[in-house]
Amino acid sequence: MHAEVFFTPHQVDEMYLRDKTVLVIDVLRASTTIAAALYNGAREIIPVATVESAMKIVGNLAGDVTLLGGERNGKMIEGFHLGNSPLEYKEDRVRGRSIVFSTTNGSQAMVKARFAREMAMLSFVNVSTVAGFVSETDADFVILCAGRNGHFSMEDSVCAGMLMQKLIDQGHRVTYGDAGSAALTLYKSNGRSLLKMLKSSEHGRYLAEIGFGDDLKFCAEVDSLPVLPLLVGNVVKLKKEPELAPASIQS
Amino acid sequence: MHAEVFFTPHQVDEMYLRDKTVLVIDVLRASTTIAAALYNGAREIIPVATVESAMKIVGNLAGDVTLLGGERNGKMIEGFHLGNSPLEYKEDRVRGRSIVFSTTNGSQAMVKARFAREMAMLSFVNVSTVAGFVSETDADFVILCAGRNGHFSMEDSVCAGMLMQKLIDQGHRVTYGDAGSAALTLYKSNGRSLLKMLKSSEHGRYLAEIGFGDDLKFCAEVDSLPVLPLLVGNVVKLKKEPELAPASIQS
Repeated sequence: MHAEVFFTPHQVDEMYLRDKTVLVIDVLRASTTIAAALYNGAREIIPVATVESAMKIVGNLAGDVTLLGGERNGKMIEGFHLGNSPLEYKEDRVRGRSIVFSTTNGSQAMVKARFAREMAMLSFVNVSTVAGFVSETDADFVILCAGRNGHFSMEDSVCAGMLMQKLIDQGHRVTYGDAGSAALTLYKSNGRSLLKMLKSSEHGRYLAEIGFGDDLKFCAEVDSLPVLPLLVGNVVKLKKEPELAPASIQS
Repeated sequence: MHAEVFFTPHQVDEMYLRDKTVLVIDVLRASTTIAAALYNGAREIIPVATVESAMKIVGNLAGDVTLLGGERNGKMIEGFHLGNSPLEYKEDRVRGRSIVFSTTNGSQAMVKARFAREMAMLSFVNVSTVAGFVSETDADFVILCAGRNGHFSMEDSVCAGMLMQKLIDQGHRVTYGDAGSAALTLYKSNGRSLLKMLKSSEHGRYLAEIGFGDDLKFCAEVDSLPVLPLLVGNVVKLKKEPELAPASIQS
């Protein structure tokens, strides 16, 4: 299987991602937060690119089952119910709720992947689950790192490398180009000290500065939230077993 | 000094680079080829973004002192005198000539840096010379990797890391963000086998396929062409000592 890695969503056109298997990584914090929300029983995440879209969509939905979540510059948006800290998305807050979700980087990448055949959200907290999913499909895939404001981010690249290394360790023959090669090298160099890497990353330092230092520890916990957030239609939800189709009649 | 690293020119706006010290890296092959041309006595390189601009400019210049050089998809452009292989830019071909130069990635990055305060071309063949230049200015700088068709390229990133490591080894306190950190890691991982890295890179494999395998060896030779190609006005030429200004009159 071929792994194509993009370090920023700006590098790739949404039509290029059409009908592909796409893994969107935004370790700090959208991918982690979505995993936390769905793990804690949220019904679905509705990714939108702009605050205006979020407000418009939520206006059309029943208020008591829908929440607005997300951030701009790491901070909660005025009028929203939740920010983008995974620690906020606790069961008593999110169970059964639909969450309209807009963040600076992560939801931009998700929106870019909206024509994908399959799109899963990947971060350290669910890396083995996502590796299992890719392993099952056994097909080529694209890793789309959300990056930060259009630029390379270390944490997303290291996570891409971790996913690739897991597949290689499972015996898959994974091919890749320069970006995939770099992701593997960066994972090998940083994989044993993820929290340290997050703390020294540009985004991690910024989050610590604005009071979200605890989020880094949560985001560094490998396989703590073994869920598979998948894009289904226009929403992200947990993969459900398909209902049994009637057996086809053999003539 | 702060080193800001961009893995592709598309990530950065030309006005962002205004009045900054910018190092443009296109190891395969524009940076290397320009170093070879100037080392071998070319008068100047005139970087242009499009083939049309190249044709227009050369039409206005005297034919016997001006050459058209460059490539699209690695191959010589119809009507041009030279391709983009550094091996073509030998002394008997280029001495005293002005070369209008247009390549797929490198000259795009150069054109993007045209409002820089200072812009130097960097590759493995002149890394110590460029490090000396940065060391003298002792100022913040931007490393602009040409990348490949808007995407990350390993060889440019490794070269960025090598330049940074040289400055660190010289005792400079170099600060950097995620991309700079990644470049350093990639250099540490690949620096001892540059030719192997070039041969396994996406661009290196492509060049070998289309018959330019020998270029890789030339491009991997560290400090073989100790020149400093600098943007002066609209052209790239070797740094000359400034003429002595008349002593100012002290009252």
